[in-house]
Amino acid sequence: MKIAVVGTGAIGSFYGGKLAHGGRDVHFLLRSGFAKIKRSGIRIRGKKENFHIARVQGYKAANAIGPVDLVLIALKATNNEALLQSIPLLLHQRTILLTLQNGLGNEDFLAQHFGANRVMGGLCFICLNRISPGLIEHLEYGHLSIGEFSGHPKPRTRDIAREFQQSGVVCRVVDNLMQERWRKLVWNIPFNGLTIAGGGITTEEILRDVSLHSAALALMNEVIEGAKSCGYSLPEDVAVEYIKRTETMGAYKPSTLLDFEAGRALEVEAIWGEPLRRAQTGGTAMPRLEQLYALLKSLNAGRE
Amino acid sequence: MKIAVVGTGAIGSFYGGKLAHGGRDVHFLLRSGFAKIKRSGIRIRGKKENFHIARVQGYKAANAIGPVDLVLIALKATNNEALLQSIPLLLHQRTILLTLQNGLGNEDFLAQHFGANRVMGGLCFICLNRISPGLIEHLEYGHLSIGEFSGHPKPRTRDIAREFQQSGVVCRVVDNLMQERWRKLVWNIPFNGLTIAGGGITTEEILRDVSLHSAALALMNEVIEGAKSCGYSLPEDVAVEYIKRTETMGAYKPSTLLDFEAGRALEVEAIWGEPLRRAQTGGTAMPRLEQLYALLKSLNAGRE
Repeated sequence: MKIAVVGTGAIGSFYGGKLAHGGRDVHFLLRSGFAKIKRSGIRIRGKKENFHIARVQGYKAANAIGPVDLVLIALKATNNEALLQSIPLLLHQRTILLTLQNGLGNEDFLAQHFGANRVMGGLCFICLNRISPGLIEHLEYGHLSIGEFSGHPKPRTRDIAREFQQSGVVCRVVDNLMQERWRKLVWNIPFNGLTIAGGGITTEEILRDVSLHSAALALMNEVIEGAKSCGYSLPEDVAVEYIKRTETMGAYKPSTLLDFEAGRALEVEAIWGEPLRRAQTGGTAMPRLEQLYALLKSLNAGRE
Repeated sequence: MKIAVVGTGAIGSFYGGKLAHGGRDVHFLLRSGFAKIKRSGIRIRGKKENFHIARVQGYKAANAIGPVDLVLIALKATNNEALLQSIPLLLHQRTILLTLQNGLGNEDFLAQHFGANRVMGGLCFICLNRISPGLIEHLEYGHLSIGEFSGHPKPRTRDIAREFQQSGVVCRVVDNLMQERWRKLVWNIPFNGLTIAGGGITTEEILRDVSLHSAALALMNEVIEGAKSCGYSLPEDVAVEYIKRTETMGAYKPSTLLDFEAGRALEVEAIWGEPLRRAQTGGTAMPRLEQLYALLKSLNAGRE
């Protein structure tokens, strides 16, 4: 299986790196990090994950890679337009596009331009920190949930999962990808949003302050209602479960907050805007999300 | 009429200054600005207001002022505890306490400690900027609405209004002070709040962005509902009227935003917290205000 990785930030470096380290034929499309990664390779360091790929198959242009069986898409959703140039050069008839991007709308973007049948999505449950191009710090977790954009899992879904599993990634196949995306948003919408709009605070500070705690819980319940209006029923206790899990995280700063503090653009539309619009289309008002989205868009203005 | 001014920031300097300039017997209780104001006086400068009080009756301690007929209270609500020391030294049997502070709860604080019968409140419609102690830039407006904390206007209410009027301040007496406070909050809650939480934006940027515009309008309607549940019926079109007026303000930064940008503490409780609690007690949910309050409290954390 020939694999291309588009977007070699923390996520692309880690999962592409795991596959390469596991002996898969992985080709990285590189932009600004090209020289450094060709010279020093990709290094993942951490207590639980620690490996180095000295010789990275890295390229400046997609035509140098050519058609592949699987494209891992891990660039920022705000740069999706760039995919319109690179992806066509990576396609053969049955090439699978697996987006590991956050939030809603990325599968739809790929489906619209390259055909829904090719598209799969993956949710990454992992804490990473990109120190510099090719140098990634692994903090915690690492499992992946993948699923089909259209319909139930197919044999190819399990094939892809096996590629990850055989490379040491805990990877499970989910029946309903969009339901899992909404479930993840139940956490990301409040915690990524409030840590940023609250002025750069940790998840611990949200849980400790009675107003922020109740704001987070209320947002979670809005997202659960929003999911329902889009046809995805999440269990009633998902908010309580997430709060419990967040309590074990300590003074955690979500990666979107770290991105924001580093001056990088937020994926405002994928994480906040698109869920809001879909829930509104489904007939659910989300006053808290609406306000948070407006504030984050304002805080993000001028960034790219 | 012997008058004391407690809190000689922009508001206290301006209205106390107008009364002194108009020939009233005004005594300023000064803290950090004592030396400068004793040396250079109080200067109000601007296109429409321009005057200088060379010899200010300024004091470091309230006992040096002694009992007065009227106390203008214009310090930040966050410093209200300091009033417990100074006010008792300024009282005789019929001393009136007129708070020019923002938001809700300040009259109640004075009533609780010094008796409801003494208490009046004033709403300042003015744009000022304190350059340094005693040096105030007047930008726009200047009229004052004053009223009784308990019940309808009395002869004394009109007497106080006349003191202001005779000193060149447009001052009207309002029948229902709390209703006017709620009316002002219909503007202050969204515009002071969103300009801060949106990352230091102007009122113009709120009006121009479709999400922020709709967030502001939704907050305004929440405040109107909140007022109603506390027994204050505001006209239906108050939000639309305010939006229209805001359109004429250009790229305006509210004084609370300027305060915030200068690192000073926000009056979070008076402007956002207390209205929220009162509306909730009245049975009205205010999801947007609840979230905005939580965010502002977080942004304000650690300031005094």
